[in-house]
Amino acid sequence: GRKVLIVYAHQEPKSFNGSLKRVAVEELSKQGCSVTVSDLYAMQFEPRATKNDIVGCLHNSEEFNYGMETLEAYKRGGLSSDLIEEQKKVQEADLMIFQFPLYWFSMPAIMKGWMDRVLVQGFAHEFPNCYDSGLLKNKLALFSFTTGGSKEMYAKGSINGDIRYLLWPMQHGIMHFCGVKVLAPHICFAPEYVSEEKRKDMLIAWAQRLKTLWKEEPINCSPEWYFK
Amino acid sequence: GRKVLIVYAHQEPKSFNGSLKRVAVEELSKQGCSVTVSDLYAMQFEPRATKNDIVGCLHNSEEFNYGMETLEAYKRGGLSSDLIEEQKKVQEADLMIFQFPLYWFSMPAIMKGWMDRVLVQGFAHEFPNCYDSGLLKNKLALFSFTTGGSKEMYAKGSINGDIRYLLWPMQHGIMHFCGVKVLAPHICFAPEYVSEEKRKDMLIAWAQRLKTLWKEEPINCSPEWYFK
Repeated sequence: GRKVLIVYAHQEPKSFNGSLKRVAVEELSKQGCSVTVSDLYAMQFEPRATKNDIVGCLHNSEEFNYGMETLEAYKRGGLSSDLIEEQKKVQEADLMIFQFPLYWFSMPAIMKGWMDRVLVQGFAHEFPNCYDSGLLKNKLALFSFTTGGSKEMYAKGSINGDIRYLLWPMQHGIMHFCGVKVLAPHICFAPEYVSEEKRKDMLIAWAQRLKTLWKEEPINCSPEWYFK
Repeated sequence: GRKVLIVYAHQEPKSFNGSLKRVAVEELSKQGCSVTVSDLYAMQFEPRATKNDIVGCLHNSEEFNYGMETLEAYKRGGLSSDLIEEQKKVQEADLMIFQFPLYWFSMPAIMKGWMDRVLVQGFAHEFPNCYDSGLLKNKLALFSFTTGGSKEMYAKGSINGDIRYLLWPMQHGIMHFCGVKVLAPHICFAPEYVSEEKRKDMLIAWAQRLKTLWKEEPINCSPEWYFK
């Protein structure tokens, strides 16, 4: 069976994001996948990139350089245990689903901290092993998120601009950089402002999509997809 | 004198980001500006958006909704003291400078947490008061950051894509959304990989720019600027 890691960032289990996460766990488990969830708020996941991420002596204690220190610590097995734990989950996963409410045209800080701290050099990339030769190649990623604004507000030419514009840093800058292939995002627009029935339809649509997810082709993660 | 808030996110005072911050404090003070620095790592600033941000009773304790709870808390003066403190600094500032190393095509999580938690509805925006009528209009913002990649790697058509692509969520999605006018970003490419002399030149160039900063016109923060 395939392995799926769901990195989930919502404070409230009863939220619509919570429901989307549960639907994914249920549907993927039904398919025989083994599903792991990193529930970031429940874990009180640390988003700050600090010296605490390195166990033992620093490589250069005179001038702290987070990128260099985490690379060195990774090589000698000296990253903090919460990072090692998350890296194991990533290593084992065939697919990573990121489930979150859009905060300021991006992911919530707690999830950005997961990216900043887990995907360290040496583990996820190491020049020139980036983009198509990134160290996490042969994995898939899918960004599944909710918005406050409506679909119309995220159309090309409207006030928020094409929703794809804001996917560039997350999908290309992070996932593609690490060699991960990106499936089309799953976006639920403005669930707070639609009827209970519409929200149920959204959950059904997500479950439906997951049924045939493994047949999907990744997007062509290049500027043309985002800015054409 | 004008008031400037520098929101600064680097762990190491001796870093190049630390030097850029010091140059800005010195040059702007010399001009007679009053300069406040929010040194996020030194403050151990909390990036996670949780119930802890609300003092006293929740508006809806059955189902926690961060956006709604912070709006209600803001109205009754019930946000946590660290947020009230930051909001005061924002309120007083004519200009906000964000100084950070680029992490994953965006700001470090600790700074994203500042955006997520400080710029709450009611304070920074409240529909329909967004974009040009956002509640922080008449303020300026400037993103000043360092990259790992070279200028060539962030050119249009090269592997990282035009550096402007990744500015969209930060400049348009956050600052413009709140009504803040955006000055051209200040980007120091790959300071880690250039000579000590080149780094000094970069610091001088930053000081030079700050001398005439108040004469600058904001960018036209629309898709044309980013994706033309």
